[in-house]
Amino acid sequence: MGVTVMLLCDIGNTSVHFYDGRKNTKYLCNSFDFTSVTQEVYYINVHPECESQLQTLANWHDLRDLILWDNYYETMGIDRVVCCEAIDDGIVIDAGSAITVDIVKKGKFEGGFIYPGVKNMQETFARLSSRLDLSFNLELDLDKMPKNSTDAISYGFLRTLKSEVERHSGIIYLTGGDANALAFLFANVVVKENLIFEGMIKILERRC
Amino acid sequence: MGVTVMLLCDIGNTSVHFYDGRKNTKYLCNSFDFTSVTQEVYYINVHPECESQLQTLANWHDLRDLILWDNYYETMGIDRVVCCEAIDDGIVIDAGSAITVDIVKKGKFEGGFIYPGVKNMQETFARLSSRLDLSFNLELDLDKMPKNSTDAISYGFLRTLKSEVERHSGIIYLTGGDANALAFLFANVVVKENLIFEGMIKILERRC
Repeated sequence: MGVTVMLLCDIGNTSVHFYDGRKNTKYLCNSFDFTSVTQEVYYINVHPECESQLQTLANWHDLRDLILWDNYYETMGIDRVVCCEAIDDGIVIDAGSAITVDIVKKGKFEGGFIYPGVKNMQETFARLSSRLDLSFNLELDLDKMPKNSTDAISYGFLRTLKSEVERHSGIIYLTGGDANALAFLFANVVVKENLIFEGMIKILERRC
Repeated sequence: MGVTVMLLCDIGNTSVHFYDGRKNTKYLCNSFDFTSVTQEVYYINVHPECESQLQTLANWHDLRDLILWDNYYETMGIDRVVCCEAIDDGIVIDAGSAITVDIVKKGKFEGGFIYPGVKNMQETFARLSSRLDLSFNLELDLDKMPKNSTDAISYGFLRTLKSEVERHSGIIYLTGGDANALAFLFANVVVKENLIFEGMIKILERRC
């Protein structure tokens, strides 16, 4: 690679997230100055507004070009793709503003789906009715049909997701901001905070 | 009952829906004049603003007082309750602005959950990202993992719901504005446009 310290960066819709192999650092997207980084940076970016500036900076390297896109689909978020690259077999669940669920078998992406994230789904119920403007019960008994409003929306959000995910076999790799909050949903689950960076490292290593 | 023509009315958040045993008639809630009806009307109402006026009209009779509430929970929508009263065994799915799924066993409500309706969930995805501002594919192959954005959100909305509903046994009674659009999701399903009125009639008959 020719780089002594490899700095990785995941640019999301709201945050710029760095990882240097040991430490995670996060900044807000709209106040971050990309020219302030002098090291070589390997990045992925889903933020359309940042893209043109990044392309003018010689030390910022887009990992998008190293993806074997044949395995994926064109409009699939690069963050989903990179998380899939991190594993050989199993189910990747990235629980952020959206929850993405992707199936990987023998290193190949088999398809996946998108579900609203915790905050977005809570807002959806609140918009439906002021009586449903409630926080989810994240300690819900998932084997019992609800008999109150909080549990009725929590079950609607969580149990449906769980029931579908459990139709698929394999280890569940859970990542994203709500990974810890949602881990109780699944048996056979591993919380992987740095899954996206593991995927980026694997992509870079493959090139060497 | 002492009424020659029994007029039933279901007052929802947006519409005033009449049924006279043969014919359905719908009006918009905010432009409807309740005093224009001179017949005896048996109604249920979820619209808080209409309630005070209805209580002053002698020919409008609230069915809420005839419900055996011990079987339900206090904040449960009266429309859900009345649909449950319509059946003895099975799963009631009311697909409107919200989708409610309720389990009834031997005439007893066993619990239920709330899920966003088609339009609301579509708006949720649109808010998440302009790239997800798409109409659902309501002819989705539900046995295939998606490999494009439209199918990925459609599957996230529809397959999760189907997978959870299918964990429960029994006939599915599907009602509400999106009943016909969602019938393809389930085997063992009966679309019942007038389920809520069937429930109202059953409640009235029980009193006789």
